[in-house]
Amino acid sequence: MIIALAGGVGGARLANGLARILPESELAVIVNTGDDFRHLGLHVSPDPDTVMYTLSGLNDTERGWGLAGETFACMEAVGRLGGESWFALGDRDLATHIERTRRLEAGETLSSITADFCARLGIRQLIVPMSDDPVQTRLRTPEGELAFQDYFVRRRCEPKVTGVEFAGATAASPSPILVSLMRSERLSGIVICPSNPFLSIEPILAVPGVRDWLSRRTVPCVAVSPLIGGKAVKGPAAKMMAELGLQTTPQAIATQYEGLIDGLVIDRADAAQAYPPCHVTDTLMRNVAGQEFLAHEVLRYLEQLRASPAS
Amino acid sequence: MIIALAGGVGGARLANGLARILPESELAVIVNTGDDFRHLGLHVSPDPDTVMYTLSGLNDTERGWGLAGETFACMEAVGRLGGESWFALGDRDLATHIERTRRLEAGETLSSITADFCARLGIRQLIVPMSDDPVQTRLRTPEGELAFQDYFVRRRCEPKVTGVEFAGATAASPSPILVSLMRSERLSGIVICPSNPFLSIEPILAVPGVRDWLSRRTVPCVAVSPLIGGKAVKGPAAKMMAELGLQTTPQAIATQYEGLIDGLVIDRADAAQAYPPCHVTDTLMRNVAGQEFLAHEVLRYLEQLRASPAS
Repeated sequence: MIIALAGGVGGARLANGLARILPESELAVIVNTGDDFRHLGLHVSPDPDTVMYTLSGLNDTERGWGLAGETFACMEAVGRLGGESWFALGDRDLATHIERTRRLEAGETLSSITADFCARLGIRQLIVPMSDDPVQTRLRTPEGELAFQDYFVRRRCEPKVTGVEFAGATAASPSPILVSLMRSERLSGIVICPSNPFLSIEPILAVPGVRDWLSRRTVPCVAVSPLIGGKAVKGPAAKMMAELGLQTTPQAIATQYEGLIDGLVIDRADAAQAYPPCHVTDTLMRNVAGQEFLAHEVLRYLEQLRASPAS
Repeated sequence: MIIALAGGVGGARLANGLARILPESELAVIVNTGDDFRHLGLHVSPDPDTVMYTLSGLNDTERGWGLAGETFACMEAVGRLGGESWFALGDRDLATHIERTRRLEAGETLSSITADFCARLGIRQLIVPMSDDPVQTRLRTPEGELAFQDYFVRRRCEPKVTGVEFAGATAASPSPILVSLMRSERLSGIVICPSNPFLSIEPILAVPGVRDWLSRRTVPCVAVSPLIGGKAVKGPAAKMMAELGLQTTPQAIATQYEGLIDGLVIDRADAAQAYPPCHVTDTLMRNVAGQEFLAHEVLRYLEQLRASPAS
């Protein structure tokens, strides 16, 4: 069994590649919930939903987020009533938030609701929120501390980031399925997806027990760099790295994951700065074929590390 | 100023007729909230919304409920996720429930939220929920007690009704605007719209102070019978009357409002059973012209009663 750690779009794409080539019972995707927030009174879980929509094939591949064929009639009407419409929730997407909120209020956990949604959408792989407890990614900026969506959507990543914190993380527990996966003897490898290391992967590592488990694991772990040619495919990773005084290189990514990974998968565009141990390949996932290609590359690299762990 | 007491569709139609012919500051519509319920975790107020959508001109005139051009993408997705889809909430309509629920949870009252929604939708007349406190219409049936929507939508009014009660009514207060309207010296008449007397008007009368105010008023009050030819235009009024051992006649309606009204407006189809004091006219409101016609008739009858109160 392979465990993948993922945030939103980039993570969901590699997770989908893995889902398409691994037997269905042999993949579990652990997903960041640090971006979860309450909007219009509803519990919105952007990253788990992006992974769920991608693995069910319901996602919009052109826009990169949300559901294919989505409409926004409700949000327009919310705007007409004076409600907040800066965060666009599609009509079909809203159903996920409405049902999740209702079930959370009825006492169910985020992870059990997610598992049920996945079953209903025909997803056989495990999609596991990192925790059932609230963890909130907050960005320190010269304008003060911003909640993730305020920074990411409302301010379009414009403020300079001077630090990141994960409110609630120290009091959070890994979700029950994650706990049992961390103890599983079926595990054969771990993949850190090409998600933002600071905003998507770090919150997962901040859940008590997870970083420890990764540093003590006995199976190989590789990360896929989210950078291509020193730039992020999507999102503020490269901008943030510069603001935090880091170079936008494979080495900086490897340093971020120091002690946790056995190797880094980087794009050909960054080959000149390869930082051993590295596996160089094409990491841009333009379509499902690209997702499958990268998944194959990652699995082969894990296999290689398993065969010669002292690489 | 005219006060109209209204439930859903029939009440909204006469209220709209009144709104179109009275100066905009001279109409207040007091609306039943006994049908309000929580669905999918959202606070749904069917009657206030029907009146609001009708007076804003956003209502679907063919279907008779909801908004024109409505879509149901969210509800279909809710069904796919295993959620309850027996009560159809349109995508635009959902915005009303989402915003109302969010604002109620933030501590605003139903009546202030309704007033703000009306302002945003361009409605100048007052639409006033009867109370900001929860009142729940419940129907006694041989199968046990049913909440209103369970009876009305889920069971399509099939169970025999042996009694009606309004849970919470004795502890409820009239909404603040209703309190000030009941004291207003600007009042010149009161209209009980052709809504179901037992399910739409009775809950308003059950709010402490309202029945008393109606019985002591010094301005004329008329009711419009919801029956045409002994049948209800819409809904279970006639069926319920039979089940409750009442005849479906103007007299039974007048008895229901005994001591509260000075006269009853009935349809020509029931002229043979006219029960004095009655005003006979065409009460079927097929379109906006029909709404305006009936509103004119009602206002003229009020005027007549004001001139010769001993009729």
